[in-house]
Amino acid sequence: MTIRIGIYGYGNLGRGIESAIRQNPDMTLAAVFTRRDPSTLKISTPNVPVCHVSQAEDYADKIDVMVLCGGSATDLPEQTPALAKTFCVIDSFDTHAKIPAHFANVDAVCKQAGTVGIISAGWYPGMFSLNRLYAGVILPEGEDYTFWGKGVSQGHSDAIRRIAGVLDAKQYTIPVQEALDAVRSGAAPELTARQKHTRECFVVAAEGADKARIEQEIKQMPNYFADYDTTVHFISAEELKRDHGGIPHGGFVIRSGKTGMDKQNNHVIEYSLKLDSNPEFTASVIVAFARAVHRLHSEGQSGCKTVFDIPPAYLSPKSGEELRATLL
Amino acid sequence: MTIRIGIYGYGNLGRGIESAIRQNPDMTLAAVFTRRDPSTLKISTPNVPVCHVSQAEDYADKIDVMVLCGGSATDLPEQTPALAKTFCVIDSFDTHAKIPAHFANVDAVCKQAGTVGIISAGWYPGMFSLNRLYAGVILPEGEDYTFWGKGVSQGHSDAIRRIAGVLDAKQYTIPVQEALDAVRSGAAPELTARQKHTRECFVVAAEGADKARIEQEIKQMPNYFADYDTTVHFISAEELKRDHGGIPHGGFVIRSGKTGMDKQNNHVIEYSLKLDSNPEFTASVIVAFARAVHRLHSEGQSGCKTVFDIPPAYLSPKSGEELRATLL
Repeated sequence: MTIRIGIYGYGNLGRGIESAIRQNPDMTLAAVFTRRDPSTLKISTPNVPVCHVSQAEDYADKIDVMVLCGGSATDLPEQTPALAKTFCVIDSFDTHAKIPAHFANVDAVCKQAGTVGIISAGWYPGMFSLNRLYAGVILPEGEDYTFWGKGVSQGHSDAIRRIAGVLDAKQYTIPVQEALDAVRSGAAPELTARQKHTRECFVVAAEGADKARIEQEIKQMPNYFADYDTTVHFISAEELKRDHGGIPHGGFVIRSGKTGMDKQNNHVIEYSLKLDSNPEFTASVIVAFARAVHRLHSEGQSGCKTVFDIPPAYLSPKSGEELRATLL
Repeated sequence: MTIRIGIYGYGNLGRGIESAIRQNPDMTLAAVFTRRDPSTLKISTPNVPVCHVSQAEDYADKIDVMVLCGGSATDLPEQTPALAKTFCVIDSFDTHAKIPAHFANVDAVCKQAGTVGIISAGWYPGMFSLNRLYAGVILPEGEDYTFWGKGVSQGHSDAIRRIAGVLDAKQYTIPVQEALDAVRSGAAPELTARQKHTRECFVVAAEGADKARIEQEIKQMPNYFADYDTTVHFISAEELKRDHGGIPHGGFVIRSGKTGMDKQNNHVIEYSLKLDSNPEFTASVIVAFARAVHRLHSEGQSGCKTVFDIPPAYLSPKSGEELRATLL
């Protein structure tokens, strides 16, 4: 019996789920749900129904885990609890401040309906959070450091696009090597925003636009750029498409802490990701945790969980015996 | 109510447990057990009983988790199951090939006695194993790489000490930077032992010993050194003590894998440790998992577990609510 996955929302993340399912032989794609006219949507997997979101209920017995691929701002706060009435669900809700409220909403529905939900799966929140938890319990006296990139920040790219005279733009967040090295040395430095990251912008300007003014507007933008060393490159639309079409990302979670009777020994725990495709990697994490959703439900559990609550063995198709013999 | 920890065996690891308990306010050291004459043992924590191992039974009601700090070759295979009859237990059993048998022995006793055990906690087995599991389920199509060091290998140091004319020695295993860089690039290279690690030896030779012969014997030793580029330095006993007295270690677990409909995207997940004290770090991991042992037992569970079975939240003294609000 394979685990039957439904995809609810077919953007970058939904397509990532579709391709991740192909890499996991114990899973099949059962259906894709869209708010668009289903007849206009072409998916990559043959013989899989594409349905309007209004038809989801009809699939109650045909889907083991529904993966919600909408946005955190308005989609998921509504959709995840609504679908948890009928399905086991998983999402990648990433509005950190609202996680407790979202958890409570999903948990209440799941417990009532006898379903299992996992919220906020991905790499942040998700794998980065998990690694902070592990590192923090091992080294209770220490400092956490998080570095982002090299990667595309959607929010910063959007901010540049809103400047008059800008046709398109892409912004990369880049960790500063010297800061990384200082943290890795165990020196536990205090670092400002500027010391930790630089920002590099590739901008397509409208014909005749004042590039000096655009560059200045970018570099002086409060919160987004003013606190960083920012580089601006003006390039053509063709160059932007050719050289900056990907969605790479990544980052580093580092904890530096001390042990010993006199706190004389330093230790550095580092977890890092280097990702060619942010949405495909996020999808790959979600799919592994979808396996745990199904297993918990098969055991008769219900309620909302996060990555913190899942025994790692539940993410694997292998048995406990096999894992102990081959991986421990 | 604090978690009352017993330490069974007071070597480097036992002392590491003692100092780790001080960094975790929800734990107290209840007693230390030794095979030596207890009156000859001086521990660092005031007002804690030091007992002979034969007295352990008397502490049945005074200890929540007994931490076994003996060796994997002969101590733990006997001690962990024997003590699991009376106590919840945790060990760092690291003879990988014998983990399944050790698990079965401890599991049978725990289930009979209603106790909980965790075996093979530490960093390897332990955190490295966990990170291989997480990385493997996220990127099912990929390659695992493990690099060791820079760190002291006890086995290799011992092998050098057995050579005629050697008074003392310390061997460091060092990962090759070029190999690390190649793996991090996502190129998924195939690497020989020689390409991955170098070995650096600091040797104290007896007066008048033939250093050229010692160096050759080291470099030609099968399994230990012959497959590696090995450097040998002869130093004085004072220099060995002054410059090489620590027990640093560490390493890198890297998985490189592909996603996407055409496997067009590379991803690299890396977990690394840089440790001033191998035994103190191992002890810090064990103490966090001891918290999970106690919690599982408080819930009425019994049986043997490994790091793969423990929900990460069980390692933390914080509540699920607190973890979600602050770490996710």
